[in-house]
Amino acid sequence: MKITKIPVATIMRMSVYSRFLTQLNHDGIEMASSSDIADGAGVTSAQVRKDLAYFGEFGIRGVGYNIKELNEHIRKILHLGDEWRLALVGIGSLGRALIMHKGFREHGFAVNCIFDNDPAKIGGFFEGVEVLPAEKIREAVSQKKADIGVICVPAAQAQNVADALVEGGIKAILNFASVNLVTPPSIHVRNVDLTVQLEVLTFQAGESIGRYG
Amino acid sequence: MKITKIPVATIMRMSVYSRFLTQLNHDGIEMASSSDIADGAGVTSAQVRKDLAYFGEFGIRGVGYNIKELNEHIRKILHLGDEWRLALVGIGSLGRALIMHKGFREHGFAVNCIFDNDPAKIGGFFEGVEVLPAEKIREAVSQKKADIGVICVPAAQAQNVADALVEGGIKAILNFASVNLVTPPSIHVRNVDLTVQLEVLTFQAGESIGRYG
Repeated sequence: MKITKIPVATIMRMSVYSRFLTQLNHDGIEMASSSDIADGAGVTSAQVRKDLAYFGEFGIRGVGYNIKELNEHIRKILHLGDEWRLALVGIGSLGRALIMHKGFREHGFAVNCIFDNDPAKIGGFFEGVEVLPAEKIREAVSQKKADIGVICVPAAQAQNVADALVEGGIKAILNFASVNLVTPPSIHVRNVDLTVQLEVLTFQAGESIGRYG
Repeated sequence: MKITKIPVATIMRMSVYSRFLTQLNHDGIEMASSSDIADGAGVTSAQVRKDLAYFGEFGIRGVGYNIKELNEHIRKILHLGDEWRLALVGIGSLGRALIMHKGFREHGFAVNCIFDNDPAKIGGFFEGVEVLPAEKIREAVSQKKADIGVICVPAAQAQNVADALVEGGIKAILNFASVNLVTPPSIHVRNVDLTVQLEVLTFQAGESIGRYG
């Protein structure tokens, strides 16, 4: 499997398919067509077939997919069988919201270290995990074998935090800071900038209604 | 300008360029090359030129772009000159984090109505905005002319909330619930599923290190 050829959009949809298949399985449904999956994910059935085709042959023509089997395949493709350990940096309102995010734990993600540079927060506990000072990032991430760093600090501090996470041995970063991080090519970074998401909407909505700011 | 031909990824990068140009302008810098902008946004300079070309001719060959002018153009393209009114539904930990999000207000987004179905929260205030019961969504959104709905409720309630927002006259929805919303074609929807973002990273990191879950 040559991953470089698989678009990120396909991976994102695979995650959505898995979520929907989990729900169908939970509802006691055994088989689904690509069109059922498409409806649940808000895409076309051609898209579902194209996405799945990147990873092999699934389902039986004219019969559909065995939901449990397909979901197990997708979860394996996404490497979701195991627990992934998250290192969260910055326990402000967004960091706290992430810690409380039910979906993370349900999907096998567990925050196993938390960092902040606010003396009032250091030594406190969130969901049983102690808040350590930011200067301990490298040491603690390495010791606790965290896999993915989650950056929830202001933009000005994000690069330093990313450097420390990388030195600690993190493999990937989910970055909520509004800044482009410079990292080694082996480190996978996803940027989630909420303002960018809103600005896509203002562009689209502004065009639709002929609004000019 | 035919917006249907402009990829969402281009719009997202335009938002990132604007953020970087704002910072350069703030630092007192007047001119930038496409390569300067590319470095700041983490893309190639060919990408910057290609993205900008969707919207017209900017900059002078061999000289570069006037930062302030280009940023004003981009902000106009993204319809950011005006204030956009947000209706936030679900004031749990994520909803509170969004209300506190500095970037929103800085970029001209103001939450002007908040809804929840928890009696303990209804009547309370966040950033000066009163929490109304969820059954008031349609009426209040229409009355306060909210432009964009932000859905931070559990997946099971998200569709009902989306329906009420649409009936109230919302133009676009930023959806944090892990569910595919069914809305009229005129309503623009962006899904921000944090678990999906993490699963892209587990796929990529899992491939790199040969990890199987």
